[in-house]
Parts: sequence; structure tokens; C-alpha cells
Amino acid sequence: MAVYTDVSDAELQAFLESYGMGRLTSFKGIAEGVENSNFLVETEKGRFILTLYEKRVSEADLPYFLGLMEHLAEKRLPCPLPVHDTQGRSLRELAGRPAALITFLEGISARRPSTAQCAALGNVLGQFHQDGADFQMRRENSLGPDGWAQLFDAVKTDADSISPGLADEIGSELEALSGKWPADLPEGVIHADLFPDNVLFLDSKVSGMIDFYFACNDRLAYDVAICLNAWCFEPDVSFNVTKGQAMLEAYQAVRPLTDAEREALPLLARGAALRFLLTRTYDWLNRDASALVLPKKPDEYLRKLRFHRQVRSAAEYGLDAR
Amino acid sequence: MAVYTDVSDAELQAFLESYGMGRLTSFKGIAEGVENSNFLVETEKGRFILTLYEKRVSEADLPYFLGLMEHLAEKRLPCPLPVHDTQGRSLRELAGRPAALITFLEGISARRPSTAQCAALGNVLGQFHQDGADFQMRRENSLGPDGWAQLFDAVKTDADSISPGLADEIGSELEALSGKWPADLPEGVIHADLFPDNVLFLDSKVSGMIDFYFACNDRLAYDVAICLNAWCFEPDVSFNVTKGQAMLEAYQAVRPLTDAEREALPLLARGAALRFLLTRTYDWLNRDASALVLPKKPDEYLRKLRFHRQVRSAAEYGLDAR
Repeated sequence: MAVYTDVSDAELQAFLESYGMGRLTSFKGIAEGVENSNFLVETEKGRFILTLYEKRVSEADLPYFLGLMEHLAEKRLPCPLPVHDTQGRSLRELAGRPAALITFLEGISARRPSTAQCAALGNVLGQFHQDGADFQMRRENSLGPDGWAQLFDAVKTDADSISPGLADEIGSELEALSGKWPADLPEGVIHADLFPDNVLFLDSKVSGMIDFYFACNDRLAYDVAICLNAWCFEPDVSFNVTKGQAMLEAYQAVRPLTDAEREALPLLARGAALRFLLTRTYDWLNRDASALVLPKKPDEYLRKLRFHRQVRSAAEYGLDAR
Repeated sequence: MAVYTDVSDAELQAFLESYGMGRLTSFKGIAEGVENSNFLVETEKGRFILTLYEKRVSEADLPYFLGLMEHLAEKRLPCPLPVHDTQGRSLRELAGRPAALITFLEGISARRPSTAQCAALGNVLGQFHQDGADFQMRRENSLGPDGWAQLFDAVKTDADSISPGLADEIGSELEALSGKWPADLPEGVIHADLFPDNVLFLDSKVSGMIDFYFACNDRLAYDVAICLNAWCFEPDVSFNVTKGQAMLEAYQAVRPLTDAEREALPLLARGAALRFLLTRTYDWLNRDASALVLPKKPDEYLRKLRFHRQVRSAAEYGLDAR
């Protein structure tokens, strides 16, 4: 939720003219996307989202993100299509920032996803993994185990100020996972941040996947594990196995998990919980009093991590429950 | 710029159903309006702004604000029309807050208004004052001279932490104005906060006046003075007399100022500058580190106040310049 960079009228008009988009009829900053500034732009030609990439997104990665969206949209996956300007460029600059104009998608994100929505998410995640298979660019996951260790170094001194014992708990979890992180699972393009705010629905149908700015090449089942964390817990952090079952079944209807992936799922879910625990801890400790963004409290992911630690098999997530 | 209150899917759907607005197709928090939470809502029936009124807006005043918008919209002034639910109510409750749904207006606000836009603003301000003349409800200006004195009491101890000498300067200004504040000027409904962010344009034509949540009954020329402050200074806080002239001429084409109003204009402009200096000082000293809103630095209005203090007649604002 953020609008960091302000854009002047003249800059904006010159920018939009270079797309041949006709007259601007509305321009509003929207409270969406934690990392970047987003604006809803309406012109005579349609509605678009204008994103200004702020410093946390590496400029070198933008061709990967924009190329991926374009690749997926061409395959009719419901995701925004980057718009090309009259010179054919999708990555531009505005107000001193890298900028892109992408198509607007209808739909609303679920504050509390229903079981039907978890199923729809599982289905579209499977399609995403299939459609990404022939995307040619590559990006390492900077928030994989090496990234976790770096984040831990940055937070370990102060983590206990959030919750006593937090540093030790993260440290032993890191150690436990470091030797065991599965190496030989099917890999491909993952979204890596497919939380409910990044999925738009019309009724129970997915009308949009958005915010591809953590996408990377990694184990496909790790993306499933991230979604189990983000979609299948109730507000009291209890795991809803009915939702887990619905998501996994719908995913497998498109792309069945391999035996190795099934076996690895509890470990991947622990890793996913640790990844978000670490970034939330870091963001909490480094929150900027003057920023427009309120970081999320890390506590939720600590409790999810503890849940996954006592899971013995993926059946507890609802895998193959019927 | 704010989205304070979160709304659940189920609450939102039930709320919109009570308006008979058809299926919800988009729902986005927008960075608009400092005092309230605003959402852009799209349904099969059209586009709307949903406002949840936060604690700084008094619930008892809401019928005045909504009634005024309805009064003005019926006179075809370009302002949002509050939508009535199937039971005829325009003031509702959502997520524990007073709430209203109003029509969406096209247009973009000017970051740096042009002379043509200052003229268009003067014209629509005159129309607003005319159209408000037969509005029957009444609301005192809580940010008139009595309110200034209260604000000064609240800030005088700490004001010098912003700028040395600020408390003394505000104090003597208050004293200077208190005896002289003009009593016998034409009164009516004023917007009282008609800054560029509250006016939407399509090209140089005003397509919308928004955010009526400071509207009240007061001296009409005081509203003109607020707009001189808000529209006719350049970013370096120099007064642009060409813009002042354009605004005043366009205003007078609709509603000529009386001799008493002309004479009082420099004093009213000082008072207007003091009012925003005081609220910005208050907001700056009381800023909440965790809030999503960054208050504006008071400095700009201190400099405007000093400018008005040395103005000898309204001719210096461009009044009757040709």
C-alpha cells in the first residue's frame, strides 16, 4: 500500500502521449503493492495501471518481470499485459524512476478466501507453472536459503525485541533446513508471492494474478507451499485442511505433484513460513517512521512455522484426502 | 492520502447489495482525502467512491456534507452525488464507521495549476457560492478565529521546535487579526478547503469539486482568500498575480465582490494563511509515526502569511487589473 513518487501533470501527459493512449480522463494513486507506487490511469483508450518502481525493486530484474507478464498474458493466463509505447518499449522512465504501463484487470481480492477461491487459486497456480515452462529468461530466487541466512544476520541482534527467543528459534530453524533443503525437485518459473492481495476474483473465478515482482526460477512445489501458507490458514492461524485439500486437488488437476514433491511439501512449507517470517521481521525492525507503509507483524508467520514443524506428511495439508 | 479502515468481503457485498448496484467488479483503496478512507468501487451499474468517515470527521456533521453535495449536484454543479440505498438512505454504516457511496467523477487534479485552470476554478467557485445560497442547513466554521485560538493553545509550547520564533509569530498574528476580523461581509456556504487536490479537470474545464468535509457557513470572500492561497502561489511560494487576476476575474463574472469584500481581501487572505499554518503546525507536532499519512510541513503557509501581511490592497492580488 503505497504511493511514494509524485508525478507532475506535464511529465505524465508527455509519458502517456508516447503510448498513443488518447486523452487522460482520470489518475488516482492506489493503495496496492507494497514495493512500488501504483496509479490507476484512465484514458480514452481504456484503463491501465501505471507502476513506478521504487528502490527495493532492482532495475536489472524488470525485463524479467515484464517479459514474464507478457509471456503469460499471451497464453491467456489472467495477468496484466505490459503496454508498449509507440517505439515498442514496455520499460520506460517517469519522474526519475523506472516505469511501466500495464492493462487494468477487473476483480477484487479476497480478504478471507473461501474454499472455492482456494480451489480456483490452486487451478490457476498449476496453469501458471505450465505456462511458464517455456519462458526463456532466468532469475535466481534472492529469497531462497542463502537469502534467509543474510536476512538472519541482519535481524538476529534485535529480533528478540519483537518476541523473546525469536532469534534463537529462527537460527535453529535455519540450521535444521539448511542441510535438508530439497535439491532435485521440478523447477520452473514461480510467482513466489501469490498472497490473496495478489489475486483478483470475479465471484469464485480468478480474473487476475498480479504483482510479479518476486517471480523467479525455483522449485515449483515451493510456490505451492507459499500458497498453503498464504491461503489456507484462518485468521486465528489454524490450518484449514478443507481449503488445503481444495487447493492441492485443483492444482494437481492441472499439474500432478511428483512423489518427491509430495514428500518434500512439509519441509517446503516450513521454508516458506521462514522466508516470510524473516522478511517481516526485517521490515518490522527497519520500519521507517515516515513511510506510508505499515509492515505486518512477524508473529503470524512464526506461528505458521511452528505448525509446519510438527506436520509429518503432506496428507495433513489435505493432499489426496479423498 | 489514506486507507485506514479495512472492509471484509462479506460486509462489503451486503453493503452494496442494499444499494441494488449489481455485481461488484473492482474495489481498490485510493490515496485520496486526508481525513477519511476512500475506495474506488466498480459494479455493473457504474463507478462510485465509497468513503468511510474516520474519527476526525464529526458524525453529526455528515448530513450537512451529504445534503450539500446533493443540493449542488441537483443544480448541476460538477460534484459527486450521494447515492441512496433501496431504503432511501445516503448515510450508512460499514465496518463500524459512518459510510457513504457517492458517484465517481472523471478528471485529474492539477499538481501545478495553470492560469487557465485558476480561471476555471474562480468561475466554479462563484457558481458554488451562488448555488449554495438556498441550501437550508447550517454549519459553523469550526476553524474560524475561535478555532485558531484553540489550535494556538495546543501548539504554542512546541511550535518553536519546527521553526524558532514560530509561536511568537503566530501569537502576534492572532492578536492582530482578532480585533479586525471583518463581521459584515456576505455569508453563505463555503467549501473552505478547495485546494487543487479537491478539484478535477478535463483539460482546462472543471469536471469535479470534491471533498466537502470542511464546508460550512462563513464569509464567501474568505473562500476566495483560501483559493488565492492554495492556487496562485508558485512552488517557490512567490505569488503569481497573473493567476490571481484570472481567478478573481472569473469569479466576479459570476458573483462580483462587494466593496467591503474587496477591501477585506488582504485580511481574509492573512486569516486563511494563518488557518492552514495552524492546522499544519498542529498536524506536524501530532503526527503519528505509524500513520499512513505524512503531514505537510507548515513552512509554506508561514511564508504565505508573511506575504499577505505586506499586501496593502487587493489590487496586489490582481483584482480589477485590467
